[in-house]
Amino acid sequence: MKIITTDFIQSVIDNKTKPPGSLGRLESIALQIAQVQNTINPCLIDPTILVFAGDHGIAESGVSAFPQKVTYQMVLNFLRGGAAINVFAKQHNIQLKVIDAGVIGNFSDYSHLPNFYNRKIAEGTKNFANQIAMTEEECAKAIESGKEIAIQETSLNCNVIGFGEMGIGNTSSASLIMSSVLNIPINECIGKGTGVTGESLEKKFKILNEAQKFHDLRVTPLMSDDAAYNSRDALEILRTFGGFEMAQIIGAMLASYRKNRILMIDGFIASACFLVARCLEPNILSNAIFCHRSDESGHKKILEALDVSPILDLNMRLGEGTGCAVAYPIIESAVNFINNMASFDEAGVSNQ
Amino acid sequence: MKIITTDFIQSVIDNKTKPPGSLGRLESIALQIAQVQNTINPCLIDPTILVFAGDHGIAESGVSAFPQKVTYQMVLNFLRGGAAINVFAKQHNIQLKVIDAGVIGNFSDYSHLPNFYNRKIAEGTKNFANQIAMTEEECAKAIESGKEIAIQETSLNCNVIGFGEMGIGNTSSASLIMSSVLNIPINECIGKGTGVTGESLEKKFKILNEAQKFHDLRVTPLMSDDAAYNSRDALEILRTFGGFEMAQIIGAMLASYRKNRILMIDGFIASACFLVARCLEPNILSNAIFCHRSDESGHKKILEALDVSPILDLNMRLGEGTGCAVAYPIIESAVNFINNMASFDEAGVSNQ
Repeated sequence: MKIITTDFIQSVIDNKTKPPGSLGRLESIALQIAQVQNTINPCLIDPTILVFAGDHGIAESGVSAFPQKVTYQMVLNFLRGGAAINVFAKQHNIQLKVIDAGVIGNFSDYSHLPNFYNRKIAEGTKNFANQIAMTEEECAKAIESGKEIAIQETSLNCNVIGFGEMGIGNTSSASLIMSSVLNIPINECIGKGTGVTGESLEKKFKILNEAQKFHDLRVTPLMSDDAAYNSRDALEILRTFGGFEMAQIIGAMLASYRKNRILMIDGFIASACFLVARCLEPNILSNAIFCHRSDESGHKKILEALDVSPILDLNMRLGEGTGCAVAYPIIESAVNFINNMASFDEAGVSNQ
Repeated sequence: MKIITTDFIQSVIDNKTKPPGSLGRLESIALQIAQVQNTINPCLIDPTILVFAGDHGIAESGVSAFPQKVTYQMVLNFLRGGAAINVFAKQHNIQLKVIDAGVIGNFSDYSHLPNFYNRKIAEGTKNFANQIAMTEEECAKAIESGKEIAIQETSLNCNVIGFGEMGIGNTSSASLIMSSVLNIPINECIGKGTGVTGESLEKKFKILNEAQKFHDLRVTPLMSDDAAYNSRDALEILRTFGGFEMAQIIGAMLASYRKNRILMIDGFIASACFLVARCLEPNILSNAIFCHRSDESGHKKILEALDVSPILDLNMRLGEGTGCAVAYPIIESAVNFINNMASFDEAGVSNQ
């Protein structure tokens, strides 16, 4: 296969009828997608967002502003088309698939729907306040399930895929995973989640600090030179604090990367999943586009640690993959300009 | 007419199935459009971007990285569909109209095109290095032309309209207008434009400093209590430093506001025009959505002075209305969620 060089792609971008660099971030996105697809005519086909849902044992400790049953209720809302992600996916013709990765509740009335996957690992994880959230077998099964789903969804044309989540309590999981993987003090990783404030927020801080002490996981600096070590530690962190929806997202990210798809990364929880995926697959960053900076306070630090600059900064903090869906047209603009703008030569415009 | 209160619109937004505030900036955009349209079911119809082009006498002093003829060449590029604004407008089904407001060159071969307006005031402005850029008559005629075009374009359904520009030398005009209206030292208002660096940039600083001294316009604090005073001064500033495309944009903004349309404001030059429009029509801000923060350094200060937060921050600095076109789907997302998301009641989701 002939490799299209970065310099050549950049020269195509620079020869479009505009001052060099004047399309800013759109130019770097176009360059990235062209590199991944090894072409100066990149394309986005059948964009898809997978929304994984799961319940968290930690919810019983009272870390969320919403009751645990909202996970189940929101999955029904996704299946009936009433949630924010439904609205934004429809706006941009993005396929939306909903996965029960481990929700408490029964979706048998919906199992016939073509956009629903029943991949329940168990009815929620264990409470990581005083237990490991999932067994090794459960964690492995969840990752495998995520891989299978991503392989199936990208088996036809889809070459750009986003990952969303729903799970009351999962900002708590993400905070602990982020703190452990990046070696950032837990208090800097905790935010208001769905809207926890005042005394409830203090309680959330206390619970997560105690959980971290209880498990006393040796902290792994992200991306040490020993890949096997990173991978083993990352899985232990995931198993201890993670949710089934998070483990499935990680599997889906890994499989999508191996199939060389463009990965759209949403907000805080999806980015915490990405941290684990990156320990397992160090090169995954090359295919990832960070869609927005969440208003959840820890997200900024994850983005800084990865040295990535997200497309949008709209103070959103909803999850569900909404950041991916809202940012998608910007990614499309990047692909459109490199394909469809005239060059200086073609347009007869003086290039200085 | 029954007035829909802000509280009522906010309650509709807060009852959608999401944590309160979690859609961030999308919520404030939805609120603003609902207020302007006085409805809880706002809509965007026939979005249109007007691209006004004009040449600037100051270009002969060498303030741009590109030769003056590029204004003419780029207008041809717009009319043939090869520019960035063509690509992005097409992506979002935005109507694009191109106006010759004062370009050096002849477009008679294109006068039959339905998307072209021949509103040439003159073949370029005078060089404001040592003259007033346009006469009172020219300035008034240009504003009137902009008004007429906007009235015509919004006479059917179009209720959301953006304003783009092309004109070699017009970042220099915008810098001087901004400095004069906002009383900000000229050096803080000057940036690289199309890509002026090093010695050329020093020369641009020198030329604009000298021009400001030469005209010695009394500085007007933005929005003094005396509207007539503001208006008279703003027009003098415009006449002294502005371009025909800028005067026409100002007229188009004013007429669009008076017809209660949603105004999409692009980058540095369009925002400098907006400053003048605001002196003439103090309430215009209520209908304006700032689409992006340009990489042109002065733009940040205009946005701060107006206390507005733009939708995108992608280091773009191309003009042409490209910021409006790229941001448009985000504005659409705001309108879509308030119309189409289920409420907590409708979806049977527990609201805490």
